[in-house]
Amino acid sequence: MTFQRADGRAPDQLRDVRITRKWLDHAEGSVLVEFGATRVLVAASVTPGVPRWRKGSGLGWVTAEYEMLPRSTHTRSDRESRRGRVGGRTHEISRLIGRALRAVIDYEALGENTIVIDCDVLQADGGTRTASITGAYVALADAVAWLRERDLLAGEPLKDSVAAISVGILDGTALLDLPYEEDSAAEVDMNIVCTGDGRLIEVQGTAEGEPFDRAQLDALLDLGQAGCATLATLQAEALAR
Amino acid sequence: MTFQRADGRAPDQLRDVRITRKWLDHAEGSVLVEFGATRVLVAASVTPGVPRWRKGSGLGWVTAEYEMLPRSTHTRSDRESRRGRVGGRTHEISRLIGRALRAVIDYEALGENTIVIDCDVLQADGGTRTASITGAYVALADAVAWLRERDLLAGEPLKDSVAAISVGILDGTALLDLPYEEDSAAEVDMNIVCTGDGRLIEVQGTAEGEPFDRAQLDALLDLGQAGCATLATLQAEALAR
Amino acid sequence: MTFQRADGRAPDQLRDVRITRKWLDHAEGSVLVEFGATRVLVAASVTPGVPRWRKGSGLGWVTAEYEMLPRSTHTRSDRESRRGRVGGRTHEISRLIGRALRAVIDYEALGENTIVIDCDVLQADGGTRTASITGAYVALADAVAWLRERDLLAGEPLKDSVAAISVGILDGTALLDLPYEEDSAAEVDMNIVCTGDGRLIEVQGTAEGEPFDRAQLDALLDLGQAGCATLATLQAEALAR
Amino acid sequence: MTFQRADGRAPDQLRDVRITRKWLDHAEGSVLVEFGATRVLVAASVTPGVPRWRKGSGLGWVTAEYEMLPRSTHTRSDRESRRGRVGGRTHEISRLIGRALRAVIDYEALGENTIVIDCDVLQADGGTRTASITGAYVALADAVAWLRERDLLAGEPLKDSVAAISVGILDGTALLDLPYEEDSAAEVDMNIVCTGDGRLIEVQGTAEGEPFDRAQLDALLDLGQAGCATLATLQAEALAR
Amino acid sequence: MTFQRADGRAPDQLRDVRITRKWLDHAEGSVLVEFGATRVLVAASVTPGVPRWRKGSGLGWVTAEYEMLPRSTHTRSDRESRRGRVGGRTHEISRLIGRALRAVIDYEALGENTIVIDCDVLQADGGTRTASITGAYVALADAVAWLRERDLLAGEPLKDSVAAISVGILDGTALLDLPYEEDSAAEVDMNIVCTGDGRLIEVQGTAEGEPFDRAQLDALLDLGQAGCATLATLQAEALAR
Amino acid sequence: MTFQRADGRAPDQLRDVRITRKWLDHAEGSVLVEFGATRVLVAASVTPGVPRWRKGSGLGWVTAEYEMLPRSTHTRSDRESRRGRVGGRTHEISRLIGRALRAVIDYEALGENTIVIDCDVLQADGGTRTASITGAYVALADAVAWLRERDLLAGEPLKDSVAAISVGILDGTALLDLPYEEDSAAEVDMNIVCTGDGRLIEVQGTAEGEPFDRAQLDALLDLGQAGCATLATLQAEALAR
Repeated sequence: MTFQRADGRAPDQLRDVRITRKWLDHAEGSVLVEFGATRVLVAASVTPGVPRWRKGSGLGWVTAEYEMLPRSTHTRSDRESRRGRVGGRTHEISRLIGRALRAVIDYEALGENTIVIDCDVLQADGGTRTASITGAYVALADAVAWLRERDLLAGEPLKDSVAAISVGILDGTALLDLPYEEDSAAEVDMNIVCTGDGRLIEVQGTAEGEPFDRAQLDALLDLGQAGCATLATLQAEALAR
Repeated sequence: MTFQRADGRAPDQLRDVRITRKWLDHAEGSVLVEFGATRVLVAASVTPGVPRWRKGSGLGWVTAEYEMLPRSTHTRSDRESRRGRVGGRTHEISRLIGRALRAVIDYEALGENTIVIDCDVLQADGGTRTASITGAYVALADAVAWLRERDLLAGEPLKDSVAAISVGILDGTALLDLPYEEDSAAEVDMNIVCTGDGRLIEVQGTAEGEPFDRAQLDALLDLGQAGCATLATLQAEALAR
Repeated sequence: MTFQRADGRAPDQLRDVRITRKWLDHAEGSVLVEFGATRVLVAASVTPGVPRWRKGSGLGWVTAEYEMLPRSTHTRSDRESRRGRVGGRTHEISRLIGRALRAVIDYEALGENTIVIDCDVLQADGGTRTASITGAYVALADAVAWLRERDLLAGEPLKDSVAAISVGILDGTALLDLPYEEDSAAEVDMNIVCTGDGRLIEVQGTAEGEPFDRAQLDALLDLGQAGCATLATLQAEALAR
Repeated sequence: MTFQRADGRAPDQLRDVRITRKWLDHAEGSVLVEFGATRVLVAASVTPGVPRWRKGSGLGWVTAEYEMLPRSTHTRSDRESRRGRVGGRTHEISRLIGRALRAVIDYEALGENTIVIDCDVLQADGGTRTASITGAYVALADAVAWLRERDLLAGEPLKDSVAAISVGILDGTALLDLPYEEDSAAEVDMNIVCTGDGRLIEVQGTAEGEPFDRAQLDALLDLGQAGCATLATLQAEALAR
Repeated sequence: MTFQRADGRAPDQLRDVRITRKWLDHAEGSVLVEFGATRVLVAASVTPGVPRWRKGSGLGWVTAEYEMLPRSTHTRSDRESRRGRVGGRTHEISRLIGRALRAVIDYEALGENTIVIDCDVLQADGGTRTASITGAYVALADAVAWLRERDLLAGEPLKDSVAAISVGILDGTALLDLPYEEDSAAEVDMNIVCTGDGRLIEVQGTAEGEPFDRAQLDALLDLGQAGCATLATLQAEALAR
Repeated sequence: MTFQRADGRAPDQLRDVRITRKWLDHAEGSVLVEFGATRVLVAASVTPGVPRWRKGSGLGWVTAEYEMLPRSTHTRSDRESRRGRVGGRTHEISRLIGRALRAVIDYEALGENTIVIDCDVLQADGGTRTASITGAYVALADAVAWLRERDLLAGEPLKDSVAAISVGILDGTALLDLPYEEDSAAEVDMNIVCTGDGRLIEVQGTAEGEPFDRAQLDALLDLGQAGCATLATLQAEALAR
């Protein structure tokens, strides 16, 4: 008999995904992305020029910062600004988002422009990093469009789209897109980042309880790649609106 | 001839004010408050107990933290968490919001409970501190209701409501509720915090250009007290929904 | 029957104010300012040039920093340098002093020079921010004189003098220039910053206990403006010596 | 024709691995671990008791900190202590090492003891995180032995051994245990952490250039699991000496 | 022909030394100490109890903090509180002052009381650390007297007095008590801390230019011990007033 | 009867000193220096150019940083990088090492090159600062040789060698080169830094218990200068290998 999910979804089913573009007035690209109750506000900010170490190279730059609002979670967390230092998890996810986006960017085509992606988690219910990446691609695409309209590009900087999803094993069942409740009980927890053509950019799997074998890993990869394909379609639809 | 506002409002007219309660699932009280394009997410978090210096007193505590998302403004600002220190303006506004709320709280009736109010500016177009205070009162009232439903109060902790509005002088005209464009050009800039019964909790006026005289100050106070009265009505309506 | 002040002063009477110029050998302007037992050392430092964001504008800059020595208060406080961060109150007062001084400065006449005002509280007995502003104007005037003697000005940068005083309501009585004991018991606490010609630069009033009405506010403003006028005379006398 | 490695190794060959136990006199466990020119000093420190949030649970705790000496790399890096903050990469690797070790620990058998693992990179030539994990297991085993000799354990806390290795794709060839030169040129970079019984604890793969497909991922996993098996043997030999 | 000092002093002559007790109203001991133009405000703060690591020992504690006001020097320095970290020189001198005072303290007689000595340099003209130590002893003696009057001591905690002076070699001449101008040009710079009975607590000599030999060292030690003896007399006179 | 040292050494005998050059592959100079169980890894890093304040002067710069690994000591200490600030002792020793090396450097001959010396204590058993200085000179000499081989010098920057040793008084006996056990029990603790020609660069003596007189000081200086002479020979032998 199969594992019953609390929200009634099939093991390979995504939560309700909503991508609302242009949620902010000032940002060159912005998206409110929701994976179920997880809600992330993504802003893409364009600035002419690149960091000092890259000046004169003719190449652009894309970077990302991720942070959670103090009451995005079940109980309030202290602000990292008040603690005076950014935590390890925050750094780690910021770096992951940046790498994921840079994997589909042609720096030469971007020219010496910098795009900073801010992912601020307004409400967290599992999968905040995968929602961030999925929404960030759409905000990035809008920021690129903003540059294109102003003739500030040297070519087409987006080589492909990028999306991400979490998978995990709970009571022996491989599940797609875990909310907080499932995530915190999972034996294995994995995040998969794919390009629109279905190839992998990032695979991060961790045994939270028992170590896992190759068969389990394969099941999770199948599930994750399928989930990313669905997200790629939703991204394309959002951008077509 | 009178000064023409870019958005067509009369000098004594508020922007469109929207107060959306229960915007978050986890927080004991939460509000998305909008004054025109200014949009602040307010979360009220209840925790049993009080800070160490207040333990055993039988008295509760209310405090507030204010912060702006990096791309809430026209151009992106660095995160205070990354800079490793909270700026003076952020501190100042956090303290103002806390004082405003505490002015209407009966600590004894609250009992040894702490309510932390987080005001995160999602989009800034002037008046972020006054929108924060106005929304924070509603989130605070919901948090107090949450405590009341669970029989965790020693009485009625809310002595009155509290709202705030900005006023200023531009080209010699006293204006109510200034958006960023007016605010940055104003000669005098003032924030007024009132209780529901129309009395003053806080008056902060600053000459940005020319010093001002008592007649000008009186005109601003009249305008601000009237604006606060309107906000008090809107708060009551929101809480009645 | 009227309220009796512990030090025997009339409600509208200042404490003994002493302004000692040239207390330091190196600083371009320096003042030891005393309001009763409150004692603040003010140093004005001139440097050629302005901050980067102002370069090439032809305009000068004035800024201020305020800090309390650890044992200026009744019980010792930790040093902000050891805690690794400057507190919100310190930031707030530093910003207030800077704004007050900038209100009487003609940046063009100052030319591309920067004057930094350091206000270090050696002993605190209420009114440290108002004593700081009052003393800072005198130190600023001396620093401007230092520039004038060296022919480094483009005109006369001081448009007027500036002074500040605290007022408050205690047991229903409006009082001028509150020492610590009165200040900590006051129902309303207000700081008023005036130019020499009697106009207002800054009004900051806070209900510490009960909210206040317009009549009370008016009484406080009358008291404060009269106090500032007296201080302006004392500043002029000090500068004439 | 196959890819030629600069150091003449076969694609599936480890560098020369040396594990020197008891390199320090004071630490309860210590190892100097070398993967070719990569040299990491690992110290395991036992302290009775556990962090506050775990007190009274009867469970132990294991955590890790990783850091690079400033001149472990080709050019000198600033010290994180001087910069006043720990970088994202350092945090990320510290967390990875801690998770890897905790995966083979039975907290109940460890009892309320804490083991802190310090991994300080004396010289870096690629694979510092995998060398750290591999050496850390041996230092951990010695620290556990130290506790066992003193009868301070509630059982056998080590459920299995743990080792880690890097794999990557360079010019289309899957390679094991990449030195810096290969690592910085690799198209895909992956770290694999295995238990002694060959199961997976952590899989972290990143496309640095082109995205990768499932076949490439499979080749890397095969290579990595074989490498970990060899390391497990070397760890057992070191512990048997 | 001998070296001529700019201020006309003999090589073995102290600057004008002034010790003004009770400069502050709140501190248990306080001194404004002046060595020529060097002016340090010293406050001694008594608190019952000792730091956590010393609780229950029956022993007291004495510690010191040294800091310079930003405009104590010829050109303004940034505040350490704003830079967010205390500099090495400040730490070093704070530690030196603390050690010097602790050398004459009987912890058992002090009982579980802590005395914190704050030395804030209001004006710097060389010898700020030696003036601090010399003044700190007097403030410490007053704080001890404060405890004695309240019957809070377990005996007599002051075993002896302590004073300090700088010596140095300039153009081959050994000089006592160097002002900034001499100090910055000296080939050898030494600080000597002595007890009232003429023994040494601390000797810190540094070759700023040429290394020095034993004969030169002996000459400096002679000069410094004599200077400390004079200071001990001045301290006793100040305490007798 | 004379004091018996736990390790059987004569009072004037050094511990076993080992200087291993070229311990690192990348650094321009590197040394593993051991004084008994004290083990310090020293790396000398050459970079072209000098800090901003020295640019265009034609002069070089030498600076040093000292730090202890968390488990170099008997019980583990927190990392200074995690605490977010460098402690006073660490600063003090870094500054001492830098001064000692700069005393033998001819900046003009060095030309506009910077050499940074990193001293990382791998294991601490007393005398870590003196071992650091003694090893640092050898690493510095190798870095200078590296510059000389590349024809990047304007002359011979090393005016002499430099070495350092600790001395102290224990139970009335003057001892050379104190291990931790002796050091922590010593009444007087002194560090002496000498040039190869036997002159003094730095003398730092502290009474940890009883103050000391001139005769005791003389005995310590004799012992220390002799110890430094022996170290100078060992340095020369190491550099000749």
